[in-house]
Amino acid sequence: MNQCYGCNTCQSADKPLETFISALPMETSHHRVEKQSTKCGFGLQGVCCRLCANGPCRITPDAPRGICGADADTIVTRNFLRAVASGSGCYIHIVENTALNLKNTAKVKGELKGLKSLDHLADIFGIVESDVYKKAEKVADAVIADLYKPEYVEMELTEKVAYAPRVARWKELGIMPGGAKSEVFKGVVKCSTNLNSDPLDMLVDCLRLGVSTGIYGLTLTNLLNDVLLGQPELRMAPVGLRVINPDYINIMITGHQHTIFVDLQEQLTTPEAIAKAKAAGAKGFKLVGCTCVGQDLQLRGAHYQEVFDGHAGNNYTSEAILATGAIDAVLSEFNCTLPGIEPICDELKIKQICLDDVAKKSNAELMKFDFDHRREQSEKIIDKVVKSYQERRGTVPLNLLPEHGYDNTLTGVSEGSLKDFLGGSWKPLIDLIVSGDIKGIAGVVGCSNLTAGGHDVLTVELTKELIAKDIIVLTAGCSSGGIENCGLMTPEAAEFAGPKLREVCKKLGILPVLNFGPCLAIGRLEIVATEIAQELGVDLPKLPLVLSAAQWLEEQALADGCFGLALGLPLHLGLPPFVTGSKVAVKVLTDGMKSLTGGQVIINNDAVESADILEKIIMEKRTGLNI
Amino acid sequence: MNQCYGCNTCQSADKPLETFISALPMETSHHRVEKQSTKCGFGLQGVCCRLCANGPCRITPDAPRGICGADADTIVTRNFLRAVASGSGCYIHIVENTALNLKNTAKVKGELKGLKSLDHLADIFGIVESDVYKKAEKVADAVIADLYKPEYVEMELTEKVAYAPRVARWKELGIMPGGAKSEVFKGVVKCSTNLNSDPLDMLVDCLRLGVSTGIYGLTLTNLLNDVLLGQPELRMAPVGLRVINPDYINIMITGHQHTIFVDLQEQLTTPEAIAKAKAAGAKGFKLVGCTCVGQDLQLRGAHYQEVFDGHAGNNYTSEAILATGAIDAVLSEFNCTLPGIEPICDELKIKQICLDDVAKKSNAELMKFDFDHRREQSEKIIDKVVKSYQERRGTVPLNLLPEHGYDNTLTGVSEGSLKDFLGGSWKPLIDLIVSGDIKGIAGVVGCSNLTAGGHDVLTVELTKELIAKDIIVLTAGCSSGGIENCGLMTPEAAEFAGPKLREVCKKLGILPVLNFGPCLAIGRLEIVATEIAQELGVDLPKLPLVLSAAQWLEEQALADGCFGLALGLPLHLGLPPFVTGSKVAVKVLTDGMKSLTGGQVIINNDAVESADILEKIIMEKRTGLNI
Repeated sequence: MNQCYGCNTCQSADKPLETFISALPMETSHHRVEKQSTKCGFGLQGVCCRLCANGPCRITPDAPRGICGADADTIVTRNFLRAVASGSGCYIHIVENTALNLKNTAKVKGELKGLKSLDHLADIFGIVESDVYKKAEKVADAVIADLYKPEYVEMELTEKVAYAPRVARWKELGIMPGGAKSEVFKGVVKCSTNLNSDPLDMLVDCLRLGVSTGIYGLTLTNLLNDVLLGQPELRMAPVGLRVINPDYINIMITGHQHTIFVDLQEQLTTPEAIAKAKAAGAKGFKLVGCTCVGQDLQLRGAHYQEVFDGHAGNNYTSEAILATGAIDAVLSEFNCTLPGIEPICDELKIKQICLDDVAKKSNAELMKFDFDHRREQSEKIIDKVVKSYQERRGTVPLNLLPEHGYDNTLTGVSEGSLKDFLGGSWKPLIDLIVSGDIKGIAGVVGCSNLTAGGHDVLTVELTKELIAKDIIVLTAGCSSGGIENCGLMTPEAAEFAGPKLREVCKKLGILPVLNFGPCLAIGRLEIVATEIAQELGVDLPKLPLVLSAAQWLEEQALADGCFGLALGLPLHLGLPPFVTGSKVAVKVLTDGMKSLTGGQVIINNDAVESADILEKIIMEKRTGLNI
Repeated sequence: MNQCYGCNTCQSADKPLETFISALPMETSHHRVEKQSTKCGFGLQGVCCRLCANGPCRITPDAPRGICGADADTIVTRNFLRAVASGSGCYIHIVENTALNLKNTAKVKGELKGLKSLDHLADIFGIVESDVYKKAEKVADAVIADLYKPEYVEMELTEKVAYAPRVARWKELGIMPGGAKSEVFKGVVKCSTNLNSDPLDMLVDCLRLGVSTGIYGLTLTNLLNDVLLGQPELRMAPVGLRVINPDYINIMITGHQHTIFVDLQEQLTTPEAIAKAKAAGAKGFKLVGCTCVGQDLQLRGAHYQEVFDGHAGNNYTSEAILATGAIDAVLSEFNCTLPGIEPICDELKIKQICLDDVAKKSNAELMKFDFDHRREQSEKIIDKVVKSYQERRGTVPLNLLPEHGYDNTLTGVSEGSLKDFLGGSWKPLIDLIVSGDIKGIAGVVGCSNLTAGGHDVLTVELTKELIAKDIIVLTAGCSSGGIENCGLMTPEAAEFAGPKLREVCKKLGILPVLNFGPCLAIGRLEIVATEIAQELGVDLPKLPLVLSAAQWLEEQALADGCFGLALGLPLHLGLPPFVTGSKVAVKVLTDGMKSLTGGQVIINNDAVESADILEKIIMEKRTGLNI
């Protein structure tokens, strides 16, 4: 009956998912990879410029400059800076909304679930205030005030949040950021038509944007979220399509702004709401996690056990989640909400509501989150979702995959919960690194894409290779979703680890791959790294620590990557950004960066080779530390 | 001796310039047109997406969606919104710096040359203050405060500056802008990866950005400039390469931020500076106008007769200006500073100094303008320029073109000087329009490009066609530079006008083509139009007024264009923006806009046809007004 739409889907590391998608009767992104497989070489190299009406211009050996005179280095770095600035803007948008939601909650004396995190933030910021709500408001205000500073006024919190030796280096390099929103603004202006043409100047700007992205968009967003949503707690949880229970009215959430869902999460479990669900024939409501907001809810799932079903999958799993037929609504509030879900929602009568107009999907209803009317909005959403359930269930086929994923996946890992687990100090971990039982740490972070070997292929293979080399892996982002759906975050995954790491896992009761949650949690990894470096009394580039955004996808990932480089860390990518057409850009990113910040970009799309390269760097860093 | 670099330069409406460029021994943008003549169809149509690592994706009949699922409408409008947001950012950067320079000048009680403009601004803003410096500071502060509002807080001055019926319509459409910098920020975020996919939502955002660009970036920048630099005064002035006098140390200026040059302009004429020039063998210093900052200095030339030589030419004349060999330094502070000048400056030993890091040229020295150290900076610049003169003159061949351009070009036209000329009221002009002696008004504005027929070809031909139809032409932007260098702004140009307009010119002593100066002065045209509409008691779309950015080039022009559309005006373009791959975008811009704002986009690259279309619209508007 359900004829498959097309058999030529891309590979996935998640074989049950691959089989499921290839048999689907509708098109997904996995199907579209083939038809988009002929790539434009100019675009891939970044040497296509379409900024002005004289264009598009393309650099070739015969035409080494565009009409205006811009050469490959200018065109490439202009395109790159624009991407980094835009990606930074995405994260800064998130931290702004998060701070606003905290501020508004504090003003109405709403629930603050993470008082320990609030105290921590107040300490860092130097805020002395006994009233908890006033304290929260002051914390939020401090963040917002910084975001709105002009570009020529340095933000005040950067220095308070970041690691002192790094701040010192950033000052030497002149990359301490001004107001984060103005930095994005300036970055975009700089690469407009016939403005900046200096590749080095623009690459340095990328580092500055990396700092503001990392400190504000990543690190502070996590900590602000902790105050409102509760600190992560270690626990085992189910992941994958198995979490979808057709007996419930299921709401898939996508985006990055978890605090927008605070009121709704509460309302979905009231007796009144459950009565509505029951009257419609369901047992109640469940939120089904997808993309980073799903990862974040999974991370804090201890606080939301009743309403949160579990994390079903990452960005490129979202179409499959919908294709099960058991999702009744999609609530989205940011990327990574694929346009590809739109026709599937239409076909399967799935209600789409967007809670932030920056991410308005073309066929969705827009209900921009309004803190003052959050209760009415939650009620409206509940009624619309119930209506959707009533209208579609029975008329749309179910296509469940209850065996997909795993039941016993470790989640709730954060800089706080992990340290607590280790007894309140990083010393046990440091001792294991010093002894060589753990060779080093790799952050496998960022997105999932479909072109670096297929869906999560490189990410998952690299992770296996790394743990086999006794390198412990910490994850954050859609990469986490792929790795967990492939079983690498269960206790059984220790079998893939090298003998020493396997022994550590057994002894300590930890796992070789630890999931810190959403891409935002790259900021948590930074905290872990900083605290370890602090304890060792060295700067970050000295640590046996590497990053890999093996399957980076988005502009946001490029901004994250620039944070990693500003931190002085080696950064592996499976696919290069669109910069290979510029000798200057390639040289600076892969080599010159070492003397600037200590960081470097490594491009390799082979898991074994990449793991070897990263291991070699870790061994060099160990030598540098005399361990 | 000087062998020509290549004969295949593009056409120019300016034939002496075309001959000069085609004989040059170095490459210019005019040479590069040919090698960049094979254009990418995907790029031209806007259906290429390179936002993410899965890409670039390209829309074809066989592949109607990118991997993520974005269709042509989403991809096109995302690319378009990003361009408009970036273009808006450029103008907002300019108004921010201009307001800052006014504020800083007021704080130190520096010279304010345009007190009438200051009073006018204070009146509009509702500022009551007797102290002139405090008044200037409050005016500047009001602008800056608006620019820094969040996107969700409406700017306060929009409503005060804009025409009330337009404001009413903008409110109905929900396009009253929040803080202008945050609007740019949000526009950029919205079109990042997997965020907004709604083409209509993004096109409406373009209108909102058009409003903030127009009211702040254009209108207010002019008025703030008037306060610091003096109001424009009508006068005759020379234009073209003839203005370059090799007996002086010549400094070519490019950009859009005239207030950055205030101190330098004064210092260049001090006895000390002139003594330095004389010691080096020159008679003194001259600023040679190029691009919009040159237009702006020309506009206000009455106040700077000693140091300003005249406007030599527009963006795509800049390489030729340098090729004369008589320019000793380039001071640039914004676009449209072509990267193509860089190798020419190297070859001819021309010193390049950038005064704003957003426009750092790759081989230039950066000396970011710093108000508090403006005097030291001016002195440094003077010394560097003298040194450049000494090192290069005699070693680099001169290749002057003293017969190029015209001596008697009308300049200094503004909403103020023109109204004064008409006796302090628009009534004489309105009467002539009502009587049909002037059929209507066309604003021929925006850039110069090289691909719509060649350098200024369409602009100049269209202008001739329009005045031949008794349509008076008001110009602003690099288009002005082309039109004036082709002689259409001299009194003799009346011979190209239709019989009725020719008679008007003779009777009133005006010209058929009136040059309002830089692209920023599109804001002055808006004031003229508004005041006429006010006097007639009608909304702007009712006026027999059309806009043409026949040879638009840059992202800034797209933001200007969106302002024109928000004003409800018909907007002619010689080349389409990269939107033709989206049916929705094309339909909305060329047709749907009529019912939204009253505006419409008309694409035509034939001067005769375009003039016919614009005349027809003017006649319809006349009928609508019963005249």
